[in-house]
Amino acid sequence: MDLHILDHRLRVTSISKNGLVNFTHPLIKLIFLRNRTRCKFFSLTETPENYTVVLDEEGFKGKTHLLSFHTPTTLVPFQHVSVFMLSTYQTDFILVRHEKDLSVVISTLEEEFNIYKEVGGESVPVHCQDVSSGLQKNGKEAIQPTVHPVLIPQNQFCVMSLDPDTLPSIATTLIDVLFYSSSPKEDTQSSPNQDLDCIKFFSFSLIDGYISLVMDTEAQRQFPADLLFTSSSGELWRMVRIGGQPLGFDECGIVAQISQPLADSDISAYYISTFSFDHALVPEEDIVSVTDMLQHQRKEPATS
Amino acid sequence: MDLHILDHRLRVTSISKNGLVNFTHPLIKLIFLRNRTRCKFFSLTETPENYTVVLDEEGFKGKTHLLSFHTPTTLVPFQHVSVFMLSTYQTDFILVRHEKDLSVVISTLEEEFNIYKEVGGESVPVHCQDVSSGLQKNGKEAIQPTVHPVLIPQNQFCVMSLDPDTLPSIATTLIDVLFYSSSPKEDTQSSPNQDLDCIKFFSFSLIDGYISLVMDTEAQRQFPADLLFTSSSGELWRMVRIGGQPLGFDECGIVAQISQPLADSDISAYYISTFSFDHALVPEEDIVSVTDMLQHQRKEPATS
Repeated sequence: MDLHILDHRLRVTSISKNGLVNFTHPLIKLIFLRNRTRCKFFSLTETPENYTVVLDEEGFKGKTHLLSFHTPTTLVPFQHVSVFMLSTYQTDFILVRHEKDLSVVISTLEEEFNIYKEVGGESVPVHCQDVSSGLQKNGKEAIQPTVHPVLIPQNQFCVMSLDPDTLPSIATTLIDVLFYSSSPKEDTQSSPNQDLDCIKFFSFSLIDGYISLVMDTEAQRQFPADLLFTSSSGELWRMVRIGGQPLGFDECGIVAQISQPLADSDISAYYISTFSFDHALVPEEDIVSVTDMLQHQRKEPATS
Repeated sequence: MDLHILDHRLRVTSISKNGLVNFTHPLIKLIFLRNRTRCKFFSLTETPENYTVVLDEEGFKGKTHLLSFHTPTTLVPFQHVSVFMLSTYQTDFILVRHEKDLSVVISTLEEEFNIYKEVGGESVPVHCQDVSSGLQKNGKEAIQPTVHPVLIPQNQFCVMSLDPDTLPSIATTLIDVLFYSSSPKEDTQSSPNQDLDCIKFFSFSLIDGYISLVMDTEAQRQFPADLLFTSSSGELWRMVRIGGQPLGFDECGIVAQISQPLADSDISAYYISTFSFDHALVPEEDIVSVTDMLQHQRKEPATS
């Protein structure tokens, strides 16, 4: 498999639930008005706690006067390195906090991936020693990290895409879901309380012109069925949410804690990090074995 | 002709050009998300100076925590009474500032209109004495008001409507024009400066489920041609803008100053008041005679 080192320099920030109204103007521009922004990497994810925004320097520049970005206080670890994972419909992104961490990630991954870097428009193979020769490889002998609590909500999720040219067709629905879903609809009877075992989670990303959407089946019903598409029709996913309290920045191995056993069992997964939690989406038919695996891991944390 | 007294209680307010970003969230809700608001009367008009918002108590209530409404300081006069005119594609509205002014308006208009009021779901005829018997009629003997300067910009305007069900189809274009047209597009060469003799003017209203749009032909080109419709294809209007400086609240007769000569000459017009100015739209083919008429009026202000 190939892995490409990209040049994007990204910012990860959070917006509080009540604070979203103040960022409606720049966010709508980033989502819908491609000809008014140079931003090439944008992601907005709603969780019960807050919104996580990832965007590149160009997107950031365009609105420094509006968005007072926090310094990211939690990024999600990958073996010994803090990484932020963002799986989309099209591809997976691993965001590394420091330039120096790149070599650790490359060293960890080069056994399984062919790693490339864009140089003058061409993809050039990269090896660990090209990036930094002074670092020790982090192999399977990695120190066992803290085992974090996991939550497995009941909702079913879909990972979808959309032709960017049809984005205007779902604009009002997407705006409604992203910016107004917390406020009650006034002309309808109040809907039954959402199942307490369900989680509010919605993610939109627009990266290099490709759109990816992750939402549960309840949100999906609000969109026209003919515009959003999944890789295989009706493919549903369940979520494993990791981290019971805000994750400390320096905690490592949170994704690894679940990704390693999943990979060992050949279970595919999407990973989405947010400001305070990590989320893994696994195929619905595998959720029982994943649950068993996680319970086992928690009973015997020292032996994996 | 019939004239109906409506029960709407409306607020007129202005939002500064730079302040619009702060009101994007409530305004987008009022424009696009009908099922999230009880507002039945909403109008947003952009002029070079600011945005004028008219909305009913329900629309206002929904966002008191967001919109810090100004007390309207200028409403536009109608004979001896300050009124605010809002012509739409479907109908004309005359907003009266005080309940007591209603009788003056009725008394002025009852020679030409059958006036009705909604009582228990039925339209009941109204006469001046029903509203207030203590007021003297204001007839043609009205005192000649101050003659205000007029401006006749070069752009051509269209007055259009749209099926509310197709509003989502133009959402991104409308959002772009309303909320982002002041900022430059970043991926295109900067467009040639707008003709200095042209005026920035765009008006959107959503009243009792009917949509009306007033825009110049340059803005119109951004919308899909098949969704917006005019009463007769290609009908274009020119603007007469009245008031060289912010109009004082107590100034009366500003609309009358132009509406009377237009009516005398059988020239139809749309009137749109904003926070600081009045605007009359007249058919393009009549603009020469209207210009002549206004010049004549200014030369002999005491003899009309």
